[in-house]
Amino acid sequence: MFVMNGNKYDSNWCLTEETYDPEKSKHYEGLFTQGNGYMDVRGSYEEGLAGVDQAREYERKPANVTLEKHLKEQSNWGTYIPGIVGKHPHLMTEIINLPYFFETGFCINGETLDMNESKITGYKRWLDMRDGSLNRHLTWHTKNGQTVEMEFFRFISKENAHLAISQIKLKLVSGNGEITFFGGANVGVRTNGFNHFTGTEISAIDKNTVQVAVDTNGGNKVVILSKLLTNRKVATVSLGDEKRGFTTGTLELGEGEELVIQRIITVATDRDKADYVTDPFETCAKTMDYALETGCDVLLNRHQGKWFSYWNRSDVIIEGDDRVQKALRMSIYHLLRADNDRDDRVAICAKGYAGAAYFGRYFWDTEISLLPFFIYTNPEAAKKLLMFRYNTLAGAKRNAHAYGYKGARYPWESSVTGDEECANWQYADHEVHVTADIVYAIMHYVHATEDVDFIRKYGIDIMVETARYWCTRVDKFADGSYQLLGVMGPDEYLPITSNNRYTNKMVKYSLEQTIFWLEQFRPEHLNVTDEEIAMFKDVASNLKLELESPEGIILQCDEFLNYADIDFDSVWKDRSKCFGTFISQERNYRSKALKQADVLEMMMLFRNEFTKEELQANYDYYEPITTHDSSLSAAVHGIIAAWLGKEDEALAFLDRVINIDMDDNKLGAEEGIHIANCGGLWQLIVFGFAGMKTAFESDEIIFEPHLPKGWKKIIIPIERNGEIKRYEVK
Amino acid sequence: MFVMNGNKYDSNWCLTEETYDPEKSKHYEGLFTQGNGYMDVRGSYEEGLAGVDQAREYERKPANVTLEKHLKEQSNWGTYIPGIVGKHPHLMTEIINLPYFFETGFCINGETLDMNESKITGYKRWLDMRDGSLNRHLTWHTKNGQTVEMEFFRFISKENAHLAISQIKLKLVSGNGEITFFGGANVGVRTNGFNHFTGTEISAIDKNTVQVAVDTNGGNKVVILSKLLTNRKVATVSLGDEKRGFTTGTLELGEGEELVIQRIITVATDRDKADYVTDPFETCAKTMDYALETGCDVLLNRHQGKWFSYWNRSDVIIEGDDRVQKALRMSIYHLLRADNDRDDRVAICAKGYAGAAYFGRYFWDTEISLLPFFIYTNPEAAKKLLMFRYNTLAGAKRNAHAYGYKGARYPWESSVTGDEECANWQYADHEVHVTADIVYAIMHYVHATEDVDFIRKYGIDIMVETARYWCTRVDKFADGSYQLLGVMGPDEYLPITSNNRYTNKMVKYSLEQTIFWLEQFRPEHLNVTDEEIAMFKDVASNLKLELESPEGIILQCDEFLNYADIDFDSVWKDRSKCFGTFISQERNYRSKALKQADVLEMMMLFRNEFTKEELQANYDYYEPITTHDSSLSAAVHGIIAAWLGKEDEALAFLDRVINIDMDDNKLGAEEGIHIANCGGLWQLIVFGFAGMKTAFESDEIIFEPHLPKGWKKIIIPIERNGEIKRYEVK
Repeated sequence: MFVMNGNKYDSNWCLTEETYDPEKSKHYEGLFTQGNGYMDVRGSYEEGLAGVDQAREYERKPANVTLEKHLKEQSNWGTYIPGIVGKHPHLMTEIINLPYFFETGFCINGETLDMNESKITGYKRWLDMRDGSLNRHLTWHTKNGQTVEMEFFRFISKENAHLAISQIKLKLVSGNGEITFFGGANVGVRTNGFNHFTGTEISAIDKNTVQVAVDTNGGNKVVILSKLLTNRKVATVSLGDEKRGFTTGTLELGEGEELVIQRIITVATDRDKADYVTDPFETCAKTMDYALETGCDVLLNRHQGKWFSYWNRSDVIIEGDDRVQKALRMSIYHLLRADNDRDDRVAICAKGYAGAAYFGRYFWDTEISLLPFFIYTNPEAAKKLLMFRYNTLAGAKRNAHAYGYKGARYPWESSVTGDEECANWQYADHEVHVTADIVYAIMHYVHATEDVDFIRKYGIDIMVETARYWCTRVDKFADGSYQLLGVMGPDEYLPITSNNRYTNKMVKYSLEQTIFWLEQFRPEHLNVTDEEIAMFKDVASNLKLELESPEGIILQCDEFLNYADIDFDSVWKDRSKCFGTFISQERNYRSKALKQADVLEMMMLFRNEFTKEELQANYDYYEPITTHDSSLSAAVHGIIAAWLGKEDEALAFLDRVINIDMDDNKLGAEEGIHIANCGGLWQLIVFGFAGMKTAFESDEIIFEPHLPKGWKKIIIPIERNGEIKRYEVK
Repeated sequence: MFVMNGNKYDSNWCLTEETYDPEKSKHYEGLFTQGNGYMDVRGSYEEGLAGVDQAREYERKPANVTLEKHLKEQSNWGTYIPGIVGKHPHLMTEIINLPYFFETGFCINGETLDMNESKITGYKRWLDMRDGSLNRHLTWHTKNGQTVEMEFFRFISKENAHLAISQIKLKLVSGNGEITFFGGANVGVRTNGFNHFTGTEISAIDKNTVQVAVDTNGGNKVVILSKLLTNRKVATVSLGDEKRGFTTGTLELGEGEELVIQRIITVATDRDKADYVTDPFETCAKTMDYALETGCDVLLNRHQGKWFSYWNRSDVIIEGDDRVQKALRMSIYHLLRADNDRDDRVAICAKGYAGAAYFGRYFWDTEISLLPFFIYTNPEAAKKLLMFRYNTLAGAKRNAHAYGYKGARYPWESSVTGDEECANWQYADHEVHVTADIVYAIMHYVHATEDVDFIRKYGIDIMVETARYWCTRVDKFADGSYQLLGVMGPDEYLPITSNNRYTNKMVKYSLEQTIFWLEQFRPEHLNVTDEEIAMFKDVASNLKLELESPEGIILQCDEFLNYADIDFDSVWKDRSKCFGTFISQERNYRSKALKQADVLEMMMLFRNEFTKEELQANYDYYEPITTHDSSLSAAVHGIIAAWLGKEDEALAFLDRVINIDMDDNKLGAEEGIHIANCGGLWQLIVFGFAGMKTAFESDEIIFEPHLPKGWKKIIIPIERNGEIKRYEVK
């Protein structure tokens, strides 16, 4: 056995938990999520936690996810393969929490290692973002007086999608004893309280190999093959009980002696694109053969090499602020981890596959918050994300049809099939801007890459079908204007408004682009008629869009001034908590209190169309009445504050953005990573502080920096035309 | 045994089913519901129906009740005792469907009587509204060649709350055979798919008596005692199986011989006010003793006498239109049946306790649609209905508090405790007018009865607490106006509007009345301060209420003109169905398409404040854009059409009102009676066609009739000052 050694600890690259705090356990599980795009596993302890029942069934019902009070467990295992989804009895389709395959437990003379019950010193756990490896060191003091040093190390291979490896060193520093260990895959898991497995097959393949196969209620088969190796001669046996397949062994260990366990785990599903073969059992077996032939140390090297190549094109260096540096790396790490750039049937879900809170669904976050990072660092990955929307166009058409419209309407919460999965009608019915956001995102990609071919092959279908939708969704008024009534804009605290400026601007832009590209070429299969194009033009030209007012304020919607002013200080008693928790939804829905950037988001996305004075006026108007209850908001306000040279405010927003997932007092990562905010942080640094012009504004890469005091420089890698260039911004 | 004989059939008093149609079975179950205020039982067949499983469990989830597609059973037993409620896993608290105690079955030589499977001729079933008795005659032709005439007759005693009696005659017209019968109470029932019984105790008391007691998940005990008597010497035995307690017997019957079965059933709960005793077992036993001592024929007489006294004060005679006459009697029958004028802890639920569709909850229907009938025919009953609101004031205070307001806010869907049970937030949160409607209703009652004492003892509490709510619910604007934003008016197709005129008018009126009565006396226990009264006055004076416009149109809300016009003909393909089924909620919510009367409802309720020209202008404006998807709407439009002398339109609305529950092609009564529409029909006849001024308009009883051609006269009994007078209107 070749024992693996992780990287040397580097605080600029490592997210670290210095002590074990049961209250924070779930937060670190989310923050320490590992993955390779194909699969993701929350950073749960290998041995589980006493008092936590991962198999507890309960009824989780639809609720407002922002305000919902979760059934609070100290730990939630989470093992996800994007695309493996199934129906939940109350929550429509959700991503399925799969068997936990890192489970590995230890006993010494009958005493079980457990973070809640054992006496532990020297605890330190860190996620090394360079290679996404999770490390844990601790010293365990048993009741029998043994002192045991333990080192846990694990990674999910970035080189081989189906492979995960875990290594645990156990050294008896003092005393001796009988060590029993087991490692395998545990099917006793639930997703939001529900058991999605319709069948389970647990097989002991040989003395150190077990295979666990589950059938899901989404019709998939998922196979996990687990092999357990040791550095010492131990008789092991593989067994299955009602919820586990595992390999176990017992040995005597003398003082100073060390046991090293390596677990090689291969995972495959019948939904995989053919990496090796399409039968998941065979994929698992062949991947295992490959891993055994190669050896863990070489597998680790190859894995690290892959991560290095991703970091090479993505790592933004901030000289002069280590805290921000690390936070930005955290964001980039999770973006790189959660993206599968080889599978265009999935995108990146709202919680970055680090939790099941948003059920593994896809929002506008993908296009507006996440995509820019990929457009400028890995255009192929950006294209793949856009292809997800192309591949779900049929769902968007079903969705439009269900509402009585023509064409295609992208769902607010998209399933992997593009069907609407949002349980709350006010969002599903009224938050329609996502459909136009997707066309904006296509154009962002095309401006940056000049990949016009993408429009010809895929984008034009999306454009034409969504234009058809908009033309049936608008209402025509006697004055010849078209209006979009009954709309929720990005600000979700005003549910049903008229002519939300963000939405109307996006729709107008989207129609204009559609018209422009139809003038370049006319794809036969879409049967676009001249009358249709005339209609597109009529709606694009006459869609109500009032962007002026005497005071220079762009009203969020027609009725904005009619909403009630709110005395924030009397309502919002504790600003460390969401504003929404202090006010009934009913009152919120009639007050001038924004959940998130709306007009400002529009101004940011169409920056070249507005003067600095206009930006300033609207920032001054909206900022005091924006609660930032949404994690998508602070980055936008931060970018605009940076552009306006408001350094203190921009830094305050930066803090806010960082704390959303990094602050272990806020516990923001408990239910997963706010992945849109990760994309937002990258944008705040690159577009905001470094002041990079987007491809909408400039064909060249240009920076107009607004670096905070103390920041020496920012080095930003940007890929253009297949070439990665590093820009130093001072 | 004294065999009972029902009334001679009279088509003007009998709702009749001439043939058995399986498709209509459920409709007639609802339409033929019997009751005495204390308990109600749907008109299901005694013997059940082959293929129907009354105990089927399923998950019914919250949905829009108007548009929801029900799980369609051919029959739903329904036995309700208002106040006996329990939690449903998805639907909050609902009225519990109790064991079906009319169940009685027959076999001849092994062949079971069943409407779906037996050969039946001469079928006729009718509800005699004079005494609420349900009759069924049929001839059964068995496979063995016997011909059996059967007569079913049953009633729920209006004289004794706890008593129900069923009599079945079976005569062998030709052939002879072995007859087996059983009768008892069946606990195999569900409410909206859920089993609310936490315990069941079935006891055979003696050879012809069984007792069934259930414990509900609402914490109540309900006891049913059943005795089975026959006219012939038959050995009977009482038994219990897992879902029934029953008495059974077998006898040989020769050609021409007749078997008469009488079932005496007594029912009591631990929630009863002490009619005899408070122990439900004892109530059942004592009521049974009373029944046996008295004999069924005398019990029937006493029951009929009670019904006669109710009809005497309620029956409106329409000379010249038998169809309308019968429909009106149907409405009055169900109003009299569903009301318990001895229990002020319950009111009349939306489906009149004839089905579980609205879960047994209380809406504004009570005050606005039902109450006028009681105010003018039985003021004590009207007072009792208002007392229900007084008794649930604590719930209304909890409700206000939950939303962050002072005082009391009545729930949109009230449980028996006054707590909000509406599962759809748009109604629960925004349809606030019910709170003011209650004060309006109190004043209606007081104007008619001069029962100022009611205000002193009860009404003032409601007034002050609801005024406190309104003063915290309004928003104050810079121009000094108070506004009610985020409001759904009676028209439920515009969910979130500003200054809905109906609501604001009601609130203003309600505050003005509160101020007026506080000027008469100041109840100490309410601790009303001068500052508070000043606040009430400020809000009452400055609440935005624009009732004028150049064209004489009162806009339903501030933004009404901004909604989209809708081309009804292109959307509403089949006007026999709800408009709402042809349009997505999303589109509906942004279009000028009213679910029901809103401005017109307000104008009707405050008629003396508007000129005929104003009424005409608003009727002409709103009528074409009102869909009447709500059963509360047609009566209002009909009344106004009658006032405006539009006879054809008024008659068309009358048709519509009648057909809501009477048309057995529409099957409107399947899930219960639209009891608000019953009150609406009475109002349409009395206020509309007969043109009676309400007590708001006139201290005297005055009629300004608008009788349709062919109607000779209407005779209307009105109670004033304890005296019933009959008014002839020509």
